[in-house]
Amino acid sequence: MRKRVLSGMRPSGKLHLGHFLGVLMNWKKLQEEHDCFFFVADWHALTTEYDRTSIIRESIDDMVIDWMASGIDPAKATLFTQSHVPAHAELHLLLSMITPLSWLERNPTYKEQLREQTTRDLQTYGFLGYPVLQAADILMYDASLVPVGIDQVPHLELTREIARRFNFLYKGILTIPEAYLTDTPKLMGTDNRKMSKSYGNAILLSDTEEEVWAKVKPMVTDPARQRRTDCGNPEICNVFSYHKIFSDEETVRKVDVGCRTAGIGCIECKKWMFEGMEKVLKPIRERRVRIVGSTVSVRDILEEGTRKARETASAKMKEVREAVRI
Amino acid sequence: MRKRVLSGMRPSGKLHLGHFLGVLMNWKKLQEEHDCFFFVADWHALTTEYDRTSIIRESIDDMVIDWMASGIDPAKATLFTQSHVPAHAELHLLLSMITPLSWLERNPTYKEQLREQTTRDLQTYGFLGYPVLQAADILMYDASLVPVGIDQVPHLELTREIARRFNFLYKGILTIPEAYLTDTPKLMGTDNRKMSKSYGNAILLSDTEEEVWAKVKPMVTDPARQRRTDCGNPEICNVFSYHKIFSDEETVRKVDVGCRTAGIGCIECKKWMFEGMEKVLKPIRERRVRIVGSTVSVRDILEEGTRKARETASAKMKEVREAVRI
Repeated sequence: MRKRVLSGMRPSGKLHLGHFLGVLMNWKKLQEEHDCFFFVADWHALTTEYDRTSIIRESIDDMVIDWMASGIDPAKATLFTQSHVPAHAELHLLLSMITPLSWLERNPTYKEQLREQTTRDLQTYGFLGYPVLQAADILMYDASLVPVGIDQVPHLELTREIARRFNFLYKGILTIPEAYLTDTPKLMGTDNRKMSKSYGNAILLSDTEEEVWAKVKPMVTDPARQRRTDCGNPEICNVFSYHKIFSDEETVRKVDVGCRTAGIGCIECKKWMFEGMEKVLKPIRERRVRIVGSTVSVRDILEEGTRKARETASAKMKEVREAVRI
Repeated sequence: MRKRVLSGMRPSGKLHLGHFLGVLMNWKKLQEEHDCFFFVADWHALTTEYDRTSIIRESIDDMVIDWMASGIDPAKATLFTQSHVPAHAELHLLLSMITPLSWLERNPTYKEQLREQTTRDLQTYGFLGYPVLQAADILMYDASLVPVGIDQVPHLELTREIARRFNFLYKGILTIPEAYLTDTPKLMGTDNRKMSKSYGNAILLSDTEEEVWAKVKPMVTDPARQRRTDCGNPEICNVFSYHKIFSDEETVRKVDVGCRTAGIGCIECKKWMFEGMEKVLKPIRERRVRIVGSTVSVRDILEEGTRKARETASAKMKEVREAVRI
């Protein structure tokens, strides 16, 4: 059965392979089977980037081009910008009235982020409340399926709690969403830390073939394998973990044996991996050329999607206001 | 110089003499001198009444009729409903991102209300954030003057702080409002407790002459004055404090002496006070008849005012979005 799916992404500029494997591949699958709304979460970006907002607006085009280059199809899914559907703010306000503070304060991601983000002041009202905004995003569209990683399950649980409380206090008009758990391969950065543009260890979806190879070639392998004739241990080699994602079974086996027996060298091994990776990246690059060359701009596409989103949101808000009796 | 003034009132049904003396008399004066926006704060009502919202919507008509019967003139001031200008929710969301939690937690009214309102659960995200919503209300209209009682000064200070922070982080487009301190006579209820409809001790602006007298007649005076021939002490008599508000100087002096010397009886004294009170209430009653009989409904008036408010808000939000770069 076709379901309504909602998912968003904060605009933070060009996307990398981690985004593709972790989110966009799922979106691509979902858009074939369900009624998908994918949105640019620019208001969410404000919760942490309120003091350097310039990157938000500039990032939107780059990000949405990356979506579409990855195969997200505006003919199949509705793509829109959160801040252009002001009803999200209204629903957020109404939900804020019924959301106990303790639910937000107990939110594990909140506590973790406060601890981790020591360089910025996140002790704001908006940052504490971003699960309420997220609830508004989801409940606005009667989404019954929300793709989330395992770490985001507590957030979705909050949305479900808020919806249940609304339905109990007023009228059962909010759809309780289900988590669609996405089990995706974890891709580390080329230096084996978390892949992140800011670490300079990310392979961008917009990198040229040459740029990708320039990042893959110097990747650290098994540090104990210093000479070509030394045997290596694929288990501790980051390139091997890439192989498991991008290469076919046959190649993975060949590399596994070749590395352990010093049958192949690291550059050879990287070239094979690079070929597999290019099988993913090449179609993205080709689509990008078509998108950038098209007469229909990303702005136009977002505007059209936003119009659709606004219509759906406006109908829902009517129902919500009637239920709250405001 | 003509200034922009903003003030709101939560819809809680029919208004009483305390509202007239404390708020509406000021509004009446302000509408002659300034560009006033007076609004029905129905979203604010939600912060405490989220679980019994039905009274909010029903109260609006009664309240606005009381405004107009008291002399608030839609030809002079813009009257509108907060929830019908969704831009307030959007500005509230944007301001929430830059408002430190500690500013809200330290708010004395917040702490006091949490202590006092023991029968309802006010530990919600929305209740904590209502000064942010208030800031949005005020800053949206570039109000430079906000009429407040002395107890609300900390709230307005919060609005000023939030505006300053916005102007510092983004662009100096928000007008820092000034408090217009309203020093109004404190009218107690007929039983000498705080005047409140729920205590049954309130003289409503919509009471008939007979109803008012039926409330004034049994008012407790100096309990030591048990017989007509006993001398009384006006200082501890609630009726005397009413005299000081509603009677002319001459009458106040006459009553003061007459009470102390047993020259007048309590009923006589109440009659004189009642006459003064009726000088206030009669014109309100007369205006009410005209308003209720008019072909222009309160809904129409609010709709027209809301249209104007929405226009002003929409222009301001454009400026705000540009400043935040969202």
